[in-house]
Amino acid sequence: MKKYTEMTKEELEALKKELLAKYKEYQAKDLKLNMARGKPCVEQLNLSMGMMDVLSAGSDLTCDDGTDCRNYGVLDGIHEAKVLLADMMEVGVDNIIIYGNSSLNVMYDTIARSMTHGVMGSTPWARLDKVKFLCPVPGYDRHFKITEYFGIEMINVPMTPNGPDMDMVEKLVSEDESIKGIWCVPKYSNPQGYSYSDETVRRFARLEPKANDFRIYWDNAYTIHHLYDDKQDELVEILAECKKAGNPDMVYKFASTSKISFPGSGVSVLASSLNNLEDIKKQLGIQTIGHDKVNQLRHVRYFGNINGMKEHMRKHADILRPKFEAVLEILERELGGLGIGEWTKPNGGYFISFDSLDGCAKDIVARCKKAGVEMTGAGATYPYGKDPHDSNIRIAPSYPPISDLIVAAELFALCVKLSSIERLLSK
Amino acid sequence: MKKYTEMTKEELEALKKELLAKYKEYQAKDLKLNMARGKPCVEQLNLSMGMMDVLSAGSDLTCDDGTDCRNYGVLDGIHEAKVLLADMMEVGVDNIIIYGNSSLNVMYDTIARSMTHGVMGSTPWARLDKVKFLCPVPGYDRHFKITEYFGIEMINVPMTPNGPDMDMVEKLVSEDESIKGIWCVPKYSNPQGYSYSDETVRRFARLEPKANDFRIYWDNAYTIHHLYDDKQDELVEILAECKKAGNPDMVYKFASTSKISFPGSGVSVLASSLNNLEDIKKQLGIQTIGHDKVNQLRHVRYFGNINGMKEHMRKHADILRPKFEAVLEILERELGGLGIGEWTKPNGGYFISFDSLDGCAKDIVARCKKAGVEMTGAGATYPYGKDPHDSNIRIAPSYPPISDLIVAAELFALCVKLSSIERLLSK
Repeated sequence: MKKYTEMTKEELEALKKELLAKYKEYQAKDLKLNMARGKPCVEQLNLSMGMMDVLSAGSDLTCDDGTDCRNYGVLDGIHEAKVLLADMMEVGVDNIIIYGNSSLNVMYDTIARSMTHGVMGSTPWARLDKVKFLCPVPGYDRHFKITEYFGIEMINVPMTPNGPDMDMVEKLVSEDESIKGIWCVPKYSNPQGYSYSDETVRRFARLEPKANDFRIYWDNAYTIHHLYDDKQDELVEILAECKKAGNPDMVYKFASTSKISFPGSGVSVLASSLNNLEDIKKQLGIQTIGHDKVNQLRHVRYFGNINGMKEHMRKHADILRPKFEAVLEILERELGGLGIGEWTKPNGGYFISFDSLDGCAKDIVARCKKAGVEMTGAGATYPYGKDPHDSNIRIAPSYPPISDLIVAAELFALCVKLSSIERLLSK
Repeated sequence: MKKYTEMTKEELEALKKELLAKYKEYQAKDLKLNMARGKPCVEQLNLSMGMMDVLSAGSDLTCDDGTDCRNYGVLDGIHEAKVLLADMMEVGVDNIIIYGNSSLNVMYDTIARSMTHGVMGSTPWARLDKVKFLCPVPGYDRHFKITEYFGIEMINVPMTPNGPDMDMVEKLVSEDESIKGIWCVPKYSNPQGYSYSDETVRRFARLEPKANDFRIYWDNAYTIHHLYDDKQDELVEILAECKKAGNPDMVYKFASTSKISFPGSGVSVLASSLNNLEDIKKQLGIQTIGHDKVNQLRHVRYFGNINGMKEHMRKHADILRPKFEAVLEILERELGGLGIGEWTKPNGGYFISFDSLDGCAKDIVARCKKAGVEMTGAGATYPYGKDPHDSNIRIAPSYPPISDLIVAAELFALCVKLSSIERLLSK
């Protein structure tokens, strides 16, 4: 295969003509496909339907400690659910609070509380002239939207296959007291599927932030979301590591069962030090009497324990793996060796990250759209929606049926080729 | 019956001796009873157990419009749940947002958002020198805790059987731009069980607040929570009335199904003008992807429609009515005509409000506690926990079995007598 960058103008023009004809064929098909959203597919949702049967009209909804799950009370979660989710979080049962249906909501509320009430007695951020967050890029758009909404200035930190550029992180947080946090998706990161190396986690735990209300926002969204049995990324556990490093209060760890049971009808969880949890519960007790304990119990009765949950995740993997592999096969077949794009090959999570030639991402996404394939908006993986290189595109293979996915991925590859040729011809 | 206030010192001393002997008998019983919390009892919870059966592993969890309730999406609630809850709220289906499991949480978030982002473009309250709320008293402690948490100054407004003192409300809101809201439980108020008169609601709708971000926080917690078939309080609908009065955006109306289905596992709802909802959704879309749609669907499939829900509430009433009547009978029998206390006789809701002689409430609650009966803390019904007369006590008859309730109410009456005598003797 000849690299596009090594082709003559004439060769590129000829190729463009050929590819445009193909593109028109796709347009004629009137496609309506979607590779934009990290949503489980119907087959995945079906995996958890048994959960609808574990509680019935004849069930006793009483907890081991006598708590009636049907009534008010229990601010931080029923004990048996804490056991299950503490195991999922790889922390002690006392180190967690179980919340409602959305970990995003927990993250939002964490920032909102810091704005109005500070962190463990610090000055409320709303009273400060400037508050900043570090944002490993590319990253998760909904993280960035939260900090943007609260007027927090976001600073890009480049991601590497081992995690964020830690030299930069260490330098910035030790120098600037206005830096109050960093967004992390440490395992199977969104969108690259990278997992932080042991060294990265240890350097995180040993940060020496200038701000004593600096916290690491550790969104462990894909903690047991492996694609393979034999290739599983494992992380050094950050809470234990922070404690060891003398920074016990420096991290909030978030997760939910959204991509384990049902998105929007699962349970979410926050893990942190006892000091942080005490601080948080002061606010939480004002905000609510408690979260949905019946749903907590439903999850416990369905999964039983962490092993049941991990077994369940194998079934998710069996559905997702062929989809990831189909996309990766097409990218390799269509774009391998052409020098016009690179992509990640994750062992878990929900996304593949694609990097085009600089200045092509928006155009690629627009071309896909015109032919009926919806991609995540170019730029979405960067704070303020601004990708400085206009090159990153997030591919979400989970939702479409595999037959659709193949068509969508092939069209995507075609659009990458066309955009790249235009770009090379315009130089 | 001779009034205590008309007794001689000698008569009071003799009575005191007799009552103290009775009190010691109660203490010897080693009671552990609770009239503190507005919690449904086990029999009430059992009423909704059928809800555990409406969805099963074989169910189709698809909405009428094709939405799969098991997946991400739908920020403001599924359509069929909106229909059900709009009817409960007595507003149009477009005028509501369905939230998670707790209306308290919705109220908290509403204040939190106003603090950081203002109301429909107004200055964020956190940036103002002073923010004040009007608090009809006695009222709901958890309302007051929210405003206290955010440093909002609370101004007491006396309640009457027709609602808050509207002369005072009208004067204050028209003069003071720092007054941004008023907490209302308009129907079967907490703790008095009063319902606002038509005139009160109309005067609310016609308020002319100096602050354009002033809102009425209309917590319609007991909207269909009647005790009787033939004595039901009905309210003029506030959203429609505000619209008619040219103040369409002046009210947020809150409710939930906590005391209809399961406390903590129900669905909550906010009703307001389209302008307010648009403003709120801008924030809500940052905070979450959506609330628990499976639980919304569960409620729809169980209740069917508002008539099914009202029928269900009759069963609650059948359980609660004898409890309220037992307490009221004891209060009348033990305290009627003695001139040492007054109490309300509500047609619905969860509470009876008791007013002792000034300066007795704390002592009464303490005496009850020493004999094993837990009451709501004296003062809890006032902002900052400060009842200026130390006279109001909230009685919650719903939770204990009726046999316990009778013992607890009789002990309570005894403690009222003892405290009153002490008070009269100390003058």
